[in-house]
Amino acid sequence: MKHFSIIAILALSIGCISFAVAGHHSYAEHQQPQSSLKYIEFSQLGDPADVLEVKSESLRALKSGEVRVKVLAAPINPSDLLQIAGKYGVDPELPSRPGSEGIARVLEISAEVKHLVVGQLVLPVGGGTWSEEIVGPASAFLPLPNLGPLDSDVIEQLAMSAVNPVTALLMLTSFVELQEGQWIVQSAANSAVGGYVIQLAKQRGIKTVNVVRREGLAEDLMAKGADVVLIDGPDLAENIAKATGSAPIALALDPVGGDTYIRLADSLGYGGTLVAYGVLSGQPATLNTGKIIFNDIRLRGFWLYKWYQTATMQDKQAAFGQIVPLIAKGVLKANVDSRYTVDEIDQAVTRAAQRGRNGKVLIVPNAQ
Amino acid sequence: MKHFSIIAILALSIGCISFAVAGHHSYAEHQQPQSSLKYIEFSQLGDPADVLEVKSESLRALKSGEVRVKVLAAPINPSDLLQIAGKYGVDPELPSRPGSEGIARVLEISAEVKHLVVGQLVLPVGGGTWSEEIVGPASAFLPLPNLGPLDSDVIEQLAMSAVNPVTALLMLTSFVELQEGQWIVQSAANSAVGGYVIQLAKQRGIKTVNVVRREGLAEDLMAKGADVVLIDGPDLAENIAKATGSAPIALALDPVGGDTYIRLADSLGYGGTLVAYGVLSGQPATLNTGKIIFNDIRLRGFWLYKWYQTATMQDKQAAFGQIVPLIAKGVLKANVDSRYTVDEIDQAVTRAAQRGRNGKVLIVPNAQ
Repeated sequence: MKHFSIIAILALSIGCISFAVAGHHSYAEHQQPQSSLKYIEFSQLGDPADVLEVKSESLRALKSGEVRVKVLAAPINPSDLLQIAGKYGVDPELPSRPGSEGIARVLEISAEVKHLVVGQLVLPVGGGTWSEEIVGPASAFLPLPNLGPLDSDVIEQLAMSAVNPVTALLMLTSFVELQEGQWIVQSAANSAVGGYVIQLAKQRGIKTVNVVRREGLAEDLMAKGADVVLIDGPDLAENIAKATGSAPIALALDPVGGDTYIRLADSLGYGGTLVAYGVLSGQPATLNTGKIIFNDIRLRGFWLYKWYQTATMQDKQAAFGQIVPLIAKGVLKANVDSRYTVDEIDQAVTRAAQRGRNGKVLIVPNAQ
Repeated sequence: MKHFSIIAILALSIGCISFAVAGHHSYAEHQQPQSSLKYIEFSQLGDPADVLEVKSESLRALKSGEVRVKVLAAPINPSDLLQIAGKYGVDPELPSRPGSEGIARVLEISAEVKHLVVGQLVLPVGGGTWSEEIVGPASAFLPLPNLGPLDSDVIEQLAMSAVNPVTALLMLTSFVELQEGQWIVQSAANSAVGGYVIQLAKQRGIKTVNVVRREGLAEDLMAKGADVVLIDGPDLAENIAKATGSAPIALALDPVGGDTYIRLADSLGYGGTLVAYGVLSGQPATLNTGKIIFNDIRLRGFWLYKWYQTATMQDKQAAFGQIVPLIAKGVLKANVDSRYTVDEIDQAVTRAAQRGRNGKVLIVPNAQ
């Protein structure tokens, strides 16, 4: 983390600022070019296990300004599955290559590209990360700063930088000015976002009530830094009050919807904010609007896609500048459930959609 | 309006700043003291027509610092009825005298009170306005500035200053920074608050879509300054889009709840705010939280009671400083449906709770 300078943050955020990386050639193993490269594509919206196809294309020469990278790891996020199913607010142009984030190593650069070097680690930001390789303009790859020698598990963790940790960070900072010692509550606390929320809150001395839907998760969440773990149910608001000594809850985060959403609203203190960021239950919420009035409850939504579209460069710098060093240090991490190759995409998305999983499903197309 | 100075606003807002009123003795007719004075009281929460009682008390000598006023007019607000029924977030201490606002004329002052004169018009702020007379500390009566000779209908309008016009003003200013030419939408547009919203929006060049539940109201609302009047129904959001040329709606105001609340949420533009300030339908709202996420809808509540508890003196000065002159000029006014004496309280609250009314029900205990 020694060299994580402001220039590195800038480079991370905009991906096109000259960023000299010296002495990284040790990472660049000699590559035997593959003649046929596999990637995932879908030509219609629907159940991912039905519509995703494994395709292959031949290696092609780079055009001016292009870069070729080898994907090391790319997670399957719930938002990816929703997008493939056509349930994510904006539909992709078809045919489309899924995969919104990941980590890759530069294999080849065109002569015009001066700020990247072969062997360097980058975060692909142009999509299509569920592929063995990606070819694209240099601006589609954010160079990571020199983080020193990295274990393969840290590299996998960095593959998950751009979506869930940024979501957790922004939800904790954009709606309510939380003070040290204050309580927040979240549902689906055993999700990847949930884990990052716990870890980021812990860093700031903010206490978390973590709501889950089944037994057996408390130990893992406590190890991450959770203060309280509760099972969802009709008495949730009461149980939260008991567990926190009736502390006024200022912020609640909910990706579940339905009854859970209402219970979290009921657990808030006067003037508290409930942020919806998913509807895992698929259920609408039966809202007593009188409670909004008398308790001054504020209901908001968070959508990372829109944030990436509208945030200023400064906002993005600030977010990545906080997230990447914490991941590299091992302070921020997510559980990994399982790893699949590109060929195994059907099994991978089926696993990713299963309940009872406890961690992220990764596409790992290449040995690191 | 010539003398509506900052001192007058201060006096209006805090009611205890010395405010010299000269030449007002013409208002002070000779009063034949009544030996028995009627007032309304309730000793249990419930249906107003059942629990309200007409009581009487003897005239008593003023204590130090007290003032005696004759109530000229006092409205029956929905919030009064909810409070009597025990459905208003906070229950009153029993027995309680209802009536939250009104207008009165000073009959008698104790020697210590220097800032009020006999004959002066005041706004009672200590409650219990459904009475022939009120006795209380001088701070419970906000002196009105010298507004010149006032017609009896303007005096009635001033009786309704503190609740509905302030609600309308604050909802238009506290949540969204509205620009001239922008559209807002409101349900129950034929309510008193609805009328004030139309008039205040018109003053600022803000366009209003006004949603009502029955035919026959458009003419009255257009006369008040409404731009569009629509009947509520399943196609409401579409009809609003048609009527406004799909203008992005920045603010929606809803005292109805239930399906109407959801339709207003659906009519908002990206990032729009829906403010609930009542639940006339008594129905919960079936909320698709996905829409909150993808359209960045912000759901808020407004409760005037809490505002009066927490607003700074400056906030209150600003609000009354805008409202009272507009009422005195006749720019801001509400329809009056009917007038009842204190004795007729059962008929009055029954009428006030009826649908199809088109105006406020007033308690008018004394001839002006």
